[in-house]
Amino acid sequence: MPAQAPDTLSDRVRYADFHSRIMTAEQAAALVPHGANVGMSGFTGAGYPKALPQAIAARATAEHAAGRPYRINVWTGASTAPELDGALAEADAIGLRLPFNTDPRCRQKINAGSIDFIDMHLSHVAQQAWFGFLGPMQVAVIEVLGVTEDGHLIPSTAVGNNKTWLEIADRVILEVNTRPPAEMAGMHDIYYGTAIPPRRVPIALTHADDRIGQPYLKVDPAKVIAVVPTHQGDRDNTFAQPDENSNLIAAAIIDFLAHEMKAGRLPQEMLPIQSGVGNVANAVLAGLLTGPFENLLGFTEVLQDGMLDLLRAGKMSRASATAISLSRTAYEDFERNIGFYRDRIILRPQEISNHPELVRRLGVIAMNSMIEADIYGNINSTHIMGSAMMNGIGGSGDFARNGYLSFFVTPSVAKGGAISCIVPMVSHVDHTEHDTQIIVTEQGLADLRGLSPRQRAQVIIDRCAHPDYRPMLQDYFDRARAGAAQHTPHLLGEALSWHQRCLETGSMRKQP
Amino acid sequence: MPAQAPDTLSDRVRYADFHSRIMTAEQAAALVPHGANVGMSGFTGAGYPKALPQAIAARATAEHAAGRPYRINVWTGASTAPELDGALAEADAIGLRLPFNTDPRCRQKINAGSIDFIDMHLSHVAQQAWFGFLGPMQVAVIEVLGVTEDGHLIPSTAVGNNKTWLEIADRVILEVNTRPPAEMAGMHDIYYGTAIPPRRVPIALTHADDRIGQPYLKVDPAKVIAVVPTHQGDRDNTFAQPDENSNLIAAAIIDFLAHEMKAGRLPQEMLPIQSGVGNVANAVLAGLLTGPFENLLGFTEVLQDGMLDLLRAGKMSRASATAISLSRTAYEDFERNIGFYRDRIILRPQEISNHPELVRRLGVIAMNSMIEADIYGNINSTHIMGSAMMNGIGGSGDFARNGYLSFFVTPSVAKGGAISCIVPMVSHVDHTEHDTQIIVTEQGLADLRGLSPRQRAQVIIDRCAHPDYRPMLQDYFDRARAGAAQHTPHLLGEALSWHQRCLETGSMRKQP
Repeated sequence: MPAQAPDTLSDRVRYADFHSRIMTAEQAAALVPHGANVGMSGFTGAGYPKALPQAIAARATAEHAAGRPYRINVWTGASTAPELDGALAEADAIGLRLPFNTDPRCRQKINAGSIDFIDMHLSHVAQQAWFGFLGPMQVAVIEVLGVTEDGHLIPSTAVGNNKTWLEIADRVILEVNTRPPAEMAGMHDIYYGTAIPPRRVPIALTHADDRIGQPYLKVDPAKVIAVVPTHQGDRDNTFAQPDENSNLIAAAIIDFLAHEMKAGRLPQEMLPIQSGVGNVANAVLAGLLTGPFENLLGFTEVLQDGMLDLLRAGKMSRASATAISLSRTAYEDFERNIGFYRDRIILRPQEISNHPELVRRLGVIAMNSMIEADIYGNINSTHIMGSAMMNGIGGSGDFARNGYLSFFVTPSVAKGGAISCIVPMVSHVDHTEHDTQIIVTEQGLADLRGLSPRQRAQVIIDRCAHPDYRPMLQDYFDRARAGAAQHTPHLLGEALSWHQRCLETGSMRKQP
Repeated sequence: MPAQAPDTLSDRVRYADFHSRIMTAEQAAALVPHGANVGMSGFTGAGYPKALPQAIAARATAEHAAGRPYRINVWTGASTAPELDGALAEADAIGLRLPFNTDPRCRQKINAGSIDFIDMHLSHVAQQAWFGFLGPMQVAVIEVLGVTEDGHLIPSTAVGNNKTWLEIADRVILEVNTRPPAEMAGMHDIYYGTAIPPRRVPIALTHADDRIGQPYLKVDPAKVIAVVPTHQGDRDNTFAQPDENSNLIAAAIIDFLAHEMKAGRLPQEMLPIQSGVGNVANAVLAGLLTGPFENLLGFTEVLQDGMLDLLRAGKMSRASATAISLSRTAYEDFERNIGFYRDRIILRPQEISNHPELVRRLGVIAMNSMIEADIYGNINSTHIMGSAMMNGIGGSGDFARNGYLSFFVTPSVAKGGAISCIVPMVSHVDHTEHDTQIIVTEQGLADLRGLSPRQRAQVIIDRCAHPDYRPMLQDYFDRARAGAAQHTPHLLGEALSWHQRCLETGSMRKQP
């Protein structure tokens, strides 16, 4: 394609009424009051406002220097980037944060107790805000690619909760980002059929790639108090190349899926794939590139490089998500081939991408990473040693509870072997034994379907635990089985001792 | 109504082909092989087969006496009664049991480790069996009220998983119970629109009282190997009169609902009610009798006396469930006024009564009891002191995760005060912090919506804990807050010490 001059702001803002509301980020930041609940765009490091959060952070710093309080409560789709969570956390400008965070500076303040964080199922956020359960939203700050002649908003690389934020916020600030290609217009599918009970109706989506909405976001123009220009790409979401462990996990999952199909427990057409974020997830997607399945569909919350590869290779025909979170290389490919990808990618509000109704109906195959599992199949996705927040549950609960098959994956050990990711009892539960079907580590795969807790324990110890920790786990389980209550045999005085030892000594290994 | 002669078996079995298959329970029990997976009807002590399980138990006892093995795996809708779980457990005739049990003899063997028990979300059971995840089903044993001229089955007091069991079982044994009134025909709404993905479609139910199916169950007549007569009512599901604590909890919930409606966070039409099983649940329903809400709808898994009272009083217009589980007195009223109740009660398969799609769409208000909650809002619904199974999660997860509002209720202490039902960390998690909105004890109500874990802890300690344990909880929380990680402050070496102390001393109180 011939090189084109980048779009100007006036190319992108075609709604004349908004021209008079164009201002700098600093000017707009002055319109966000201390104490406000602020809904921001952004999901998995994509589609977040770039300029305004930094301007708000600067304002907070100035206010604090002048001895005045300044904090806002930040609601997003999911994770953002240093320009948003990092800058605001650094400036002590966040009071409460929800529903997900991966920024290290923000995480540090959450775990230091200076930011209150609410970790929510991503399918619950929009509706709870709409119901009024989280309080009023004073301001929404939404990145868009442009505004159409009739005042509709062209969504950016993430839809997230933007539809709901635009509806419930008292005032709206638009960040118009001229960096992503205008040709993205048309990729999005914004469903306006949701409602507050008792006025809800079935969501008429029966295939992962159905379009049920419209390409644009609506906004009441009277609420738009500022239009701020930016020209900047999303954060670079590069992951390391899959390592040996990730490849082993991926191979086990693909073998298992092929086996299930042969056994008649998985339809020949295959079912839509959900894949969490990270190296193992990307390794599984890479494995599908050479695997036996064709005409795959994606129904997931975030499209990473691996799904783009599957689309490009023709192994996956279409993918539905709420955000595109790519490495620089993959993003460049996306931009260069926007026509190809626009026909194959559908970006929806996260209330739809993660909707329990749809995940169950479509029979999604869910694959999510975890921090640790216990021998009975309870999963910790969020907490380090019971107290410290890592990132949040994200959509893993939406998909694991409602999917057709649900995998939880992790290497069997962490920190060079000092931590076993299979433990007697998890230090925090995000997914209960009722929601866990298959656990996979580089050691192997434990299929827990149709097993009682005692049966699960033996399979998890035998198949998933690292050999260094297997005897310790077996010893715990054997001694617990000598106790009085045998449904889920535990030694409560010892169940969390591995974590306690790790806190005290830096390792779960028994000291010599 | 004039007294009528009870129906005879031939009044009820109008499908001529089945007459030759009528036999005694003992004869039919001989057709259930050792090692079989057997799907039985039954949900919350209603609609379970009465004769055959006892005959199977007798056969097992005889086989064991002769030195031969005999065990079956028993899958039901939910709980049954002494004639089923009690008799089979007593005879050591159960290998594996799923998905719920309340029988004390069966529970004793589960906790002794001689019965494997799988505790499942009730909305997951039918689909997982249909997918083949639980293995093949050799025999279904289903209580029905009769068989129509064209071979359709008139369901009994519970629908449970019967539709699915009849479809997937290799062979079917019908227990035709002439005791419940024939006039129940027409109450049931059996939906045949479910499918295995990728062929699922939206479930076209938008009001709790919509009828979307047909009144009868289908069966392939060629699979029916026996028709066994019985004439016996369901177990007597009498609950104690609500005590002072239950009334306090009920009053707090009703006040809260009225307040939410006034605040505009609950629609004026009110939303459908789900109510778990037990005294507190019945007290809440009793409270609604004199409460401010009219034209209530029920969308729940089991109808107990309290909902019948609401229907009779005209406060509730219609109720949807999968089973009717009544006291003797209420059952007699139900029988006498079957015409009235048949128009107001809809019994559905549990896959529909508990369906995540429907619970979320309708915006159900979920009220479920629990064993204990921790200060961060994690809920234990199933385990005593971490290892021993009580009953199971039942439908509480289906409703709590997907409902509009979700209450978990318990008295603040148990065993005369020796056990605090609010603890530093629950000994087993069935509902995570992500799924818990409101916790209620007789001490008060903690509204956790929009609160971070630390905020939740203070509210739960202040509002819900018993005064005897409040200082101990506050002390734990304060000391945990002095630790390094402040998102969910815990002292892992101490988090389960209350349970451990209770196991050792019989009380969670600190010894003087």
